[in-house]
Amino acid sequence: MPDVIPVDSVGVVTPQIAHFSEPLELACGKSLSSYQLVYETYGTLNQDASNAILICHALSGDHHAAGYHSKDDKKPGWWDSAIGPGKAIDTNKHFVISLNNLSGCCGSTGPTSINPDTGKIWGADFPIVTVEDWVESQARLADKLGVTTFAAIIGGSLGGMQVLEWSIRFPDRLKAAVIIASAPKLSAQNIAFNEVARQSISRDPDFRDGDYLNEETLPKNGLGLARMLAHITYLSDDSMDSKFGRQMRHDTFQYNYDIEFEIESYLRYQGEAFTNRFDANTYLLMTKALDYFDPAARTEGDLAKALEKATCEFLLVSFTTDWRFSPARSEEIVDALVKAGKKVSYAKIEADEGHDAFLFPIPRYMAALKGLLNRVSKQIQEEAK
Amino acid sequence: MPDVIPVDSVGVVTPQIAHFSEPLELACGKSLSSYQLVYETYGTLNQDASNAILICHALSGDHHAAGYHSKDDKKPGWWDSAIGPGKAIDTNKHFVISLNNLSGCCGSTGPTSINPDTGKIWGADFPIVTVEDWVESQARLADKLGVTTFAAIIGGSLGGMQVLEWSIRFPDRLKAAVIIASAPKLSAQNIAFNEVARQSISRDPDFRDGDYLNEETLPKNGLGLARMLAHITYLSDDSMDSKFGRQMRHDTFQYNYDIEFEIESYLRYQGEAFTNRFDANTYLLMTKALDYFDPAARTEGDLAKALEKATCEFLLVSFTTDWRFSPARSEEIVDALVKAGKKVSYAKIEADEGHDAFLFPIPRYMAALKGLLNRVSKQIQEEAK
Repeated sequence: MPDVIPVDSVGVVTPQIAHFSEPLELACGKSLSSYQLVYETYGTLNQDASNAILICHALSGDHHAAGYHSKDDKKPGWWDSAIGPGKAIDTNKHFVISLNNLSGCCGSTGPTSINPDTGKIWGADFPIVTVEDWVESQARLADKLGVTTFAAIIGGSLGGMQVLEWSIRFPDRLKAAVIIASAPKLSAQNIAFNEVARQSISRDPDFRDGDYLNEETLPKNGLGLARMLAHITYLSDDSMDSKFGRQMRHDTFQYNYDIEFEIESYLRYQGEAFTNRFDANTYLLMTKALDYFDPAARTEGDLAKALEKATCEFLLVSFTTDWRFSPARSEEIVDALVKAGKKVSYAKIEADEGHDAFLFPIPRYMAALKGLLNRVSKQIQEEAK
Repeated sequence: MPDVIPVDSVGVVTPQIAHFSEPLELACGKSLSSYQLVYETYGTLNQDASNAILICHALSGDHHAAGYHSKDDKKPGWWDSAIGPGKAIDTNKHFVISLNNLSGCCGSTGPTSINPDTGKIWGADFPIVTVEDWVESQARLADKLGVTTFAAIIGGSLGGMQVLEWSIRFPDRLKAAVIIASAPKLSAQNIAFNEVARQSISRDPDFRDGDYLNEETLPKNGLGLARMLAHITYLSDDSMDSKFGRQMRHDTFQYNYDIEFEIESYLRYQGEAFTNRFDANTYLLMTKALDYFDPAARTEGDLAKALEKATCEFLLVSFTTDWRFSPARSEEIVDALVKAGKKVSYAKIEADEGHDAFLFPIPRYMAALKGLLNRVSKQIQEEAK
C-alpha cells in the first residue's frame, strides 16, 4: 500500500462473512445444507437502499475488488482502477458489494471447505455449481444486506454471464445490467480450451482424483499448465507481440529446452504464481460453470425470448482485440436485447490488451460505465420523488 | 485401400531409405556423424532431371504423402488429395520426393533412433535440429537422387518455412517456391502455445527427462494434452462451431467431469490417437524448430534483404479462417518479396477449415497450385530448347 492512501482509494477494507443456514438447491440436483459467503463492501448504503451495486467476479476473481487489506499489501483489489471515491464506480455515491462466489477458494464455501457430513475437505466431491446457483446465492446475500433492488449489477467475462442471468431471473431486483467482455454461451472453441485446462489438472498425478488436500499433495504442474494456457487467451496476439515479441533470454540461442524467449519465462512465472493462490478443484468448477451457461437453452435457443422478462437497462462493453469473447459475442447479446425491445447501449472499445482489457481503466470504457451509473442514479432519484 | 485403385492415385508405394555417412554440422553446434532419411517418390524423374518436386512436411507430418503402403491401408498418405496422376501435383508430369525430416519419428534418424556413441536410444539427447539443418539434409538427399534443381519445392505451415529457407540458402536449386499457410517467423503467441505444449510433455512424470523409451514408459498424458491444444489452433472457431457447436453427449447434463459436450470427446480422442503414432521428444524438437526459424534475423530483421538472393518464382497461399498463421503472416512474406523485386503470386483462399485448410483439396487452391506448376514446367521446357 502507498504510504498515503490516495484520495480515490477506498482505503483499508475488511472482508466480512455471511452465514446461510437455509439449504440451497443447486442446478445439479444436489443441495448445500449450509454455506458461507465472504464479501466486502465499499461506500455506504443510503436510507432507501437504492444505491447498491453488485460486482460479479470472473473465473479467478474474488471478493477483494478494491482497496487494501492491510498497510503491508503491495497491490490493491483486482478492480481498484474502477471502484473508489470519484472513480467510475463511485463509492461516494454508491454502496458496492463484492463477494467471492460459492465454490470459490477465497473464503466462501467451496472445495477447500470441510464437508460437514464427512469432517474432511470436500475436494472434488463439492457439487458442481452453475451461474444460476451463484445468482441465487448472491440474491440471498443481498437480502441479508438489506438490498431489494440493485442500482446496477456489473461483471466482466464469467461475471457478465452472472449479470445476464440476474436480468432474467430477478428482473425486479436491478435497474441496470453491465455486461463486459462476455458471451451468451461458450462456443465449441471456448469449451475446447476449458477441456484442455481440465485435462491438464486431472492428469497431474498429484491431483489424486481431486482429493489432493486430504492427501497433502498439490497438482501444481497441472494447474500451472491450465493457467499458462488461459493466459494466452486473455492477451491479444498484438499485445503479446508488443510486450514480448521474440525477445530472447540470452544473446544467442542455447539450443536446449530451457527458456530461449522471454514469453516462455513470463508464462511459466504466471503459471507458477497462480498455483500459489488458487485451488485446482475450484478452477475445474469455474470452467464447468462457464461451459454450462446458456440461458437461451431454456427458450429453444432463442436468446431474445430468454430476455423477454428483463426490465432493466443494459450496457454491453466489448474490446476490439479480445479473441476469447470477441465483440461479435457481445453483439449477439445486443442483437437479442434489441429484438426483445429492451433498452440497451453498447460500447465497443479500442484496446490492445485483448480479453484482459476489461481490467484496465481505459478512458472511453470508464466514461461509458460512469455515464450509465450517473443516468441510472438520476432515474432512481426521480422515481423516488 | 479401395478394392480398385483410383486412376488418380499413385497406388501402392514403398518407402526407401537413404544413408548418409558424411557428418552433418547442425545449427546448434553439434554434428551427426551419420544418419538416414526415409522417403517416398511418386512419378518418374525425366532424362534431364528437371521435373522434380520436393514436398516439405509440417509438424506432425511424415514421408508418406500419397498412395498406400499396402492393400490393408485404410487411409492414403497425408496429402493424397493433391498428389497423383492428373492431380494438382501431377505425377504423370512430375517426379515427387517426400521425406521424413531428420529428427522425425517415422524412419529418419531422430530421438527414437540408437545413438551410436552409447548404444542406447537417443531420447532427449538427440541434438536440436533447425529448419536450416533440414534444408541442408534435404539438399543432400536431392544430390543422392540426382536432382540438382527442383521444378518446385512445396510445403505448408512448418513445411512452408523450409521452402522459404530453400529459396534463400540454395537459390539455384529451385525454380518455384510454394509456401502455404505459413509465416516468416513465430509470433509471441505462437511461441507461447508451443511452450505450453512442451511443458505439458516435460511435466508428465512418464517423460523421465526424455529418457522414457529406455525406461520403458511413455508420456502419453502430456503428449495427448499437447496435441489437444494444438488441434484447437488447427481448426477455426467457426468450423468447430459448425462441426460440434454445443452438441451434448447425453440428453441432459450430468454435472460431473465426464464428457458433457461432443467437442470434449473429439479432442480427447485426437489426443489419445496421436500418442499412439507420434514420439514426444520429436514433438518437442519440431516445436523448437518452429520457434527458432527467423531468416530475417540474419539480415537485421529485414526479410526483404534476407530474400535478396532468391531467384525462384514464389506462390504464397493463405486461408481466410486460419488463425494459427493468419493471411497477414503470409502477406508479410509477400510484401518482403515485392520489396525485394521478386516474382510472386498470392492466393488468399476462402475456407472454413482454419489452418487445417492447407490439407483440403479446395478447388481454387488446387487450381492455383496446378497453374503455377504448369507454368513453371513450360518455362523449364522452353529454357531447355
